[in-house]
Order: sequence, then C-alpha cells, then structure tokens
Amino acid sequence: MANIGVVTTATNNQVILRNYVSGFPKESDLYIASTTVDLRVPPGSMAVLVKILYLSCDPFSRIRMEKPDPSSPASLALAYSIGKPITGYGVAKAIDSGHPNYKNGDLLWGRVGWEEYSVITPTHSSHFKIHHTDVPLSFYTGLLGIPGLTAFVGFYEICSPKKGETVFVSAASGAVGQLVGQFAKMAGCYVVGSASSKEKVDLLKTKFGYDDAFNYKEERDLSAALKRCFPEGIDIYFENVGGKMLDAVLENMRTHGRIAACGMISQYNLKEPEGVHNLASIVYKRIRVQGFAAVECFDKYSKFLDFVLPYVREGKITYVEDIAQGLENGPSALIGLFHGKNVGKQLVEVARE
Amino acid sequence: MANIGVVTTATNNQVILRNYVSGFPKESDLYIASTTVDLRVPPGSMAVLVKILYLSCDPFSRIRMEKPDPSSPASLALAYSIGKPITGYGVAKAIDSGHPNYKNGDLLWGRVGWEEYSVITPTHSSHFKIHHTDVPLSFYTGLLGIPGLTAFVGFYEICSPKKGETVFVSAASGAVGQLVGQFAKMAGCYVVGSASSKEKVDLLKTKFGYDDAFNYKEERDLSAALKRCFPEGIDIYFENVGGKMLDAVLENMRTHGRIAACGMISQYNLKEPEGVHNLASIVYKRIRVQGFAAVECFDKYSKFLDFVLPYVREGKITYVEDIAQGLENGPSALIGLFHGKNVGKQLVEVARE
Repeated sequence: MANIGVVTTATNNQVILRNYVSGFPKESDLYIASTTVDLRVPPGSMAVLVKILYLSCDPFSRIRMEKPDPSSPASLALAYSIGKPITGYGVAKAIDSGHPNYKNGDLLWGRVGWEEYSVITPTHSSHFKIHHTDVPLSFYTGLLGIPGLTAFVGFYEICSPKKGETVFVSAASGAVGQLVGQFAKMAGCYVVGSASSKEKVDLLKTKFGYDDAFNYKEERDLSAALKRCFPEGIDIYFENVGGKMLDAVLENMRTHGRIAACGMISQYNLKEPEGVHNLASIVYKRIRVQGFAAVECFDKYSKFLDFVLPYVREGKITYVEDIAQGLENGPSALIGLFHGKNVGKQLVEVARE
Repeated sequence: MANIGVVTTATNNQVILRNYVSGFPKESDLYIASTTVDLRVPPGSMAVLVKILYLSCDPFSRIRMEKPDPSSPASLALAYSIGKPITGYGVAKAIDSGHPNYKNGDLLWGRVGWEEYSVITPTHSSHFKIHHTDVPLSFYTGLLGIPGLTAFVGFYEICSPKKGETVFVSAASGAVGQLVGQFAKMAGCYVVGSASSKEKVDLLKTKFGYDDAFNYKEERDLSAALKRCFPEGIDIYFENVGGKMLDAVLENMRTHGRIAACGMISQYNLKEPEGVHNLASIVYKRIRVQGFAAVECFDKYSKFLDFVLPYVREGKITYVEDIAQGLENGPSALIGLFHGKNVGKQLVEVARE
C-alpha cells in the first residue's frame, strides 16, 4: 500500500551510458548521475518500486552498449539508450507495490536498472520472488540466478553429460564456469578449465574441484595445451569465450562432441571478430553446437532451485563472489570483466537489506 | 555357390591413388591400372565377389585423399592408401557369394572399390540388398542411397522444419541439395538455393521447386544476397559448403535457427581453411549447429525408402544425374566435383547390369 502523507521521495543515483561503445568499453563510457525518485507507485498501477540491493555484472552488457543497427528491431530492442541508466539483473526489495503478487518488504530478483531505486512491472518471466533467505541474498545474482540456471541448463540439458566423459570449460572461474566444473564432477566427468591468471587456475584446482586447469595467457599453443589435458579428446565444451579457444577446441573435440555456446566474451570488444578455421570438424566429428540463453529457460528455474539449494545449504557447492561496494564502483566492476579482473562472480552491493 | 571348373578370372581395371593430395586434386593424382581378379570367393568364406555397375562421386573422397596424420587413428582409418584403389559407395551385382544373405545375381549397394570387380564382406551397415528394381539402379548411388538418406535425416530430423519457415540450401543442385529443396517444399517451407552457374540456378527454379535461387559466383556480397532472398531471415540452413557462405548465413539467421552441417566442400581443398567470423550469432540467436553423417543413420534407411519410393514412382520427385561413362572417366568425374562441373548427382557408370 502506498504510504500517502509520509516521506515519499529519495535521491536516486544511477549509472548512465554516455555513448555507444566500439572496442573495449572504458569507465568513462558510463557516469553516475543523481535524480529524485518517487517512493510511491501511482494508485491503481501494477508497478513495484524497489530498492536495489545487489547488481550483477554480466558480459552480455557489452553487447547492449554497442550502437544498434537501425534496420534491426532485435538490435534496437537490445541496445541501451544513451543518457539513460543501463539495466541488468539484480536483487531488490519492494518498497511500494501496486502488484497483487508483491507486498512491501518482499525480496525479489530480476531485471532492474543500475540505480538505487527502480520501478518495475513484474511478470512471471522478468522477476522472481525470493522465498529462501537462509542463503546469502547476493547469491541470487549468480549461483541462484541467471548464471546458476545457465550452468544447470547448459551442462545438464544441452551437453547431455555421461559418466566418464571429458569436459572443458573456458572462463572457468567466472560466475557460470565455477558451477559447471562442480556439476561436471557431480556427473562423474573429468573436467578441465582455463582462466586468465595463476590465482584463478589455483582456485579451479583447489576450490572448484577441477581435475586440471591452465592459464591460457601462458600457453603459446592452445591446441597443444588441450592435447596435454585431453590426450583422448574432449566430449563436452562449455563455451564462454569464442575465438582462438574455440578453434583449438574444435581441433581437439571427439566424435559426437557437444558444445554449449553460452557466451563468446573474447569477441565482444573486437571490431572484427576473429576467424574460426576448424569448423569442418563439426561435420567430420558430427559435433553439435547449441547456443542458448537461460532467460529462455525460466520454466526450469524451480527445478533448478530444488536441485541446487540442498547442495548450497550443505556447503557442497563452493561459490566465490567478487563484490564491489557501492553503486559508484559499478562502472569499474563492470568494465573489469572484460579484462578478467574479477575473481569469481562479479557483482555490486548497492545497499544492504 | 562358387563355379568351380569354369572361367574363373577376369581383368579388373582399378582407379588407383598415385599420391596424397594437398590443395585441389588433379586427375593425375589418380591413375587406372589393370589387374586380374578371381571370380570365385574361397570356399567357406563369407565374402561376395561383385561386379560394379555404378560408382558414386562424393566430395568426402577429397578428405580421404589427404595425407593422414600418423598420430590420429581416425585419420589413418579414413585415408586412402597410395598405390591402392580408392573406395566409395556403389551399386553392384553379386557374381559369387559365400555369404548366406546374398546369392549370385543379387543386386546391392554399399562400400566398394573404384574398380570393375570388388570382393566385399557385407554387414548390416556396409551393404544393402536392392529389393526395388522398378526404379533406375543408378538411383541407389544418390536419391535412394547415401545422398537421399542425408537429405532425409538432415532436413526432417536435424532441421525440425515447421510449415512456413524459411530454408536456405547451399550447393543446392547437388546430389543432396536437389532433394532438400523438394523436401522443404513438401514441408510447406519457403526455400532458396545457391549454386555455381546460371544453368544450375535455372534448374533449381524450374525443376527442383526452389522458390528462389542465386549464383553465388555472381554475388559480390553474399550477405546482401541472402538479405534480398530472406528479408525476415533464415530459419534453417542446410550447410554443404562452409567458409564465406556460412559466415554470411550466420549474419542472416533468425533466432532459434537450425543448421544441419552436412559438408563444407568449399574448404576441403584449402591448405588453411577460411576463417568464419560471425559465430557469436550462435549465442545471440540461440542457433543449433549439428554435424551429421548418413552412415550413422542406417537404422532410418528403410523408413526413408518407405517414404521416398512412392514419390519416385509417381514422378513427384525430380532427380537429375550427371553420369560419366566408363571407369576410365571416373577420375575426371570425381575431380570435376570440386570445380562444380557436375549438374546434378555425379556418378560413373562402370557397367550395365
């Protein structure tokens, strides 16, 4: 219910897109601006005014910073608007609600602005009420949100793993990769990950249960590195990076291999994406490559929670977060993703509950 | 039964590999040699001595002409041997048989040598007895053999077509492409094909029922050509060529598009395959790419025959063959494939029944 007659406005800091980006994004492509927000939703509205607690930093944001192709409705729908706050996934608390499914104080996760307060209009595919609060709320930006669902659907459904198969994960210490490695071990697979630093490689082997791992920046020949780790070849590749790594993987895939194409972060900042040369392997080895997006799999979200929450509560899943404090540190946290600065899931704590 | 005591040997001309090939194969990479064959199989053997009637010219042979990688068992198993006859699929007649399922005079198709007589040991996945002889026997090298099964499995199963969807087929007048176009029309799709000459483009539009077609050699911008043919994008791509065409297709695919990767003939003769740059589309548009091979789908062969034979008998499927006469013209027919010389399914008539 709207609190008519009490304090009804607040300062609302926002992360605004200054200009469309080509090449690597810079912190200066974003800026913080301050505005005022009405803390009440209009009477009769289905909207919810939420206070943002956590924001997820996602590689996909880079794609939305690109200047849209005016002839493409899909591109226009995707692109951020210059001068407006960027958007993404976050955890938030309802402050005022006109929506029958949400009351003041409810916690939820879903699509919000990069700001302190957002007005949202929840649908069954845009926002999810948080019912389990015995786990850290920030996990709903990662392990219990889109990245978790991505790892779950991508690995269990798209990769169809069988016990004893070999699995390779790129960007393996990231929000999705750290979970795929653990899911692969649960499925009885042999799993190897690549990452961009010794620290991350150590994490993969000591915390996330990877059987082996390598720092791709220290390998002169990625295909040779993969041959060393997979002398018999790769059955499953969980693809997060694209480009040269994908080329090396295709050389090392086994017959009937499966590639879950979740992201290609190495390509997002290139004006001309790298050429991938070994695609004929897809024919020779009868490989399946499947692009997918967790946002199209929300029908599996409750099944996923049922699966993952017991492991989380029993401490059987390890999950590492890299938390930037305060909205003002959001831009550098987001840009840092593209330089591999984060160790674990990158997010921003905007406010505590 | 072996005909002991009668004429038991014959001259056997063979097409022999002179050397391993890199780049485009030449006729001189093959030569004809003459040997003598025993027309009887040894008593107690399960072998069948067959007389070759038709040989199929397949792009895949080029891969088998490549020098094998000695460290790869798969590559060693695939490669032809220098100084030995090349092998492939053909239609043949049993002359002498020790196999319980084949008797003298039986017709069959399957793996044979490029020669006048072969000794084969049939298994359920290497050779198929021909039961329907009211259709031209040569069709078992194409429409009723591997290319037909390829088109059937690739289009109906891998592409999961829905009525009203848009379909693009490259190498569309070839053995497989001419059938995919007709299957696409039967499925209520809009189908466009590309080929390498005006003559073939005309065939596509006038004989094979393609809604539209273009000569890729006359298009400066393949992506623009595809946009012209598919202003709303491509749902299904039946991939026979790879390289630049695949790149242009990825740009024009629709969300949830499917690509059946059947072959990449444009790449087989290149020392360094072309780079494909638009693979991030697989992620953005959640595309599925599936490599497949009809030789792994023989369990569907009888279902395929049940489906296709009535259409063939009623003349409801158009099928164009390009027949070279005589084994001595086999090498030029095979090499011609890689220059797009054939119009329709290329095969060699070695002997009449």
